[in-house]
Amino acid sequence: MSDLKRAYNFNPGPGALPLEVLQQAQAELLDFKGTGMSVMEISHRSKEFEAVIQTAEADLRELLGIPSNYKIMFLQGGATLQFAMLAMNLRPAGASADYIVTGTWSKTAIKEAKKLGTARAAANTEADGFNCIPAKLDLDPKAAYLHFTSNETIHGVEFFTEPTPPDGVPLVCDTSSNFISRPIDVSKYAFLYAGAQKNAGPSGVTVVIARDDMIERTPENLPVMLDYKTLAASGSLHNTPPSFAIYMVGLVFQWAKKQGGLAAIEKTNRVKAGMVYDAIDQSGGFYRGHAKVDARSLMNIPFRLPSEELEDTFAKEAKKNNLIGLKGHRSVGGMRASVYNAVTIEGATALVDFMKEFQKKNG
Amino acid sequence: MSDLKRAYNFNPGPGALPLEVLQQAQAELLDFKGTGMSVMEISHRSKEFEAVIQTAEADLRELLGIPSNYKIMFLQGGATLQFAMLAMNLRPAGASADYIVTGTWSKTAIKEAKKLGTARAAANTEADGFNCIPAKLDLDPKAAYLHFTSNETIHGVEFFTEPTPPDGVPLVCDTSSNFISRPIDVSKYAFLYAGAQKNAGPSGVTVVIARDDMIERTPENLPVMLDYKTLAASGSLHNTPPSFAIYMVGLVFQWAKKQGGLAAIEKTNRVKAGMVYDAIDQSGGFYRGHAKVDARSLMNIPFRLPSEELEDTFAKEAKKNNLIGLKGHRSVGGMRASVYNAVTIEGATALVDFMKEFQKKNG
Repeated sequence: MSDLKRAYNFNPGPGALPLEVLQQAQAELLDFKGTGMSVMEISHRSKEFEAVIQTAEADLRELLGIPSNYKIMFLQGGATLQFAMLAMNLRPAGASADYIVTGTWSKTAIKEAKKLGTARAAANTEADGFNCIPAKLDLDPKAAYLHFTSNETIHGVEFFTEPTPPDGVPLVCDTSSNFISRPIDVSKYAFLYAGAQKNAGPSGVTVVIARDDMIERTPENLPVMLDYKTLAASGSLHNTPPSFAIYMVGLVFQWAKKQGGLAAIEKTNRVKAGMVYDAIDQSGGFYRGHAKVDARSLMNIPFRLPSEELEDTFAKEAKKNNLIGLKGHRSVGGMRASVYNAVTIEGATALVDFMKEFQKKNG
Repeated sequence: MSDLKRAYNFNPGPGALPLEVLQQAQAELLDFKGTGMSVMEISHRSKEFEAVIQTAEADLRELLGIPSNYKIMFLQGGATLQFAMLAMNLRPAGASADYIVTGTWSKTAIKEAKKLGTARAAANTEADGFNCIPAKLDLDPKAAYLHFTSNETIHGVEFFTEPTPPDGVPLVCDTSSNFISRPIDVSKYAFLYAGAQKNAGPSGVTVVIARDDMIERTPENLPVMLDYKTLAASGSLHNTPPSFAIYMVGLVFQWAKKQGGLAAIEKTNRVKAGMVYDAIDQSGGFYRGHAKVDARSLMNIPFRLPSEELEDTFAKEAKKNNLIGLKGHRSVGGMRASVYNAVTIEGATALVDFMKEFQKKNG
């Protein structure tokens, strides 16, 4: 492995995975724990796979401090399927749900919810170009739930304090792109979900954390694969789960514990994001961050250069320097550095060095 | 690798994968085609991943002879989510759909369809213990579609000739457990789907093959992840797809082509299944197959022994002999040998030798 070439990977998701995790997956890919089979070839009802899924769940419970009255599910279809499923399951017939709209993903979440019933925006920052966290919320005290997106992957705005719903209104959160990036108080949430392909593993599995009373809301007669009550009761094993993706997520949880847990991971994430934001702030306007300073995401850092031409050159030269995935989302333009858990300080340093060098040549 | 221990894997799914496929995945797990990233870490919008998905699609088109007026989709949620999705998409409001019920999976398919509208059984072989293919069908000439399950994984009954729907009624098929096991005439079908975790790859991806006019049936305002029209138009890239599972399925398609395509694969599958059925038929009643002879699946072979005690002993001793996954489904009992594409003739020989030896000792 001495000549292994690894990129500095700033992809927004699927994104960087910890090298140790990939190495372990590689080492046991043909023979999982002496079974003589790949983890992809064993039955999801075998004791070996039960250990995989139960360990993953226990490790996540420990990492996030998930109380015992919450169920964990490993589902499919990404956060986008959850947009529909949570509206089907958590919003009783005739009720309305509140959404805080702070970027592309919360905008899509409310759009999906509106297809299936009533939803209203408790705030919408689109007029500001989705560059901030709303200061004021117009909350419905009778809402079935209040939904927010704790980190907007495309616009790079992050909530560092949870919004406070009215008494009795459950807080629902799409945490896809800042999942397990720092400690949170799960007891403030009724329902959390995250596509794994940012901080937690490969694509193909969505982690759902649901308080027991949320699962009780599931109405009768939903298709089984859209029915939280059935899925939770089966321990994610109603039908064949995405077993390799769950295995990988489990390895990432183990890796996160070895890093010292989420407090240690947050510390590193703050160092990495801080380095990139400093490079932006110290560039004298050559680099311009998209988000307002107090809403700056620790995970996704969109920024612009003086011209689109320079942005193209930046992306191309970065790639030549082994810095991958820096082109911004087509809807926002410019650049975006995603510095998820598995991006190393070495990677962030390489990016910042390149940014400074690029400015020197082109500024 | 010389001391690699590999099991003889008769799991019903997830099941055996071709060793060459696993070896290739292992070799490039940390650096996919010189990107310096795992295939799990690259963007689903990158040219590298586009090549993965487009090659997989082209290879499947070639293997199955899929005409150009059919779309291929790589979706999530297993066949079980398709049970609901196809009813939502292909059955217009107020219309009824016909189902041929020949085992657990078609029974589940019609149950899901009934949650969302009208469905009727054109035949139901449950009274016969799901051991046969129905001789007669009671068909609705106005049905939105006729659904059948070409191979029942649990009961081991397989259609070798497609049922003939009334003129103008589209034929819809769950082909999960005999997908790419032999050539079929795709033009007889309007819609086919298969969970990959039997013959085509790991769990976590479902292959859907839909004739263009079927996709046109999608009604307005479905949640996007349940909407064939949107999913097909995006080339399976509406949101982040299960990229590693799609990559693996692509490797399996390449492997199948190297075997000589589906005609060659069918030949091997007939040899393997023939060996096991011969061992049953030549046992003088010690082993008893579940399915009637003319409905015998080439993929899943459920059989009984003289007593449950002997069946337990058989499973335990088989495992000691490195023969894995032979316990039957809890709903049927007894044993089941799944001899999917990736099970080798060497594996089938080891099983048959063990069966004969076991009978000698216990018969």
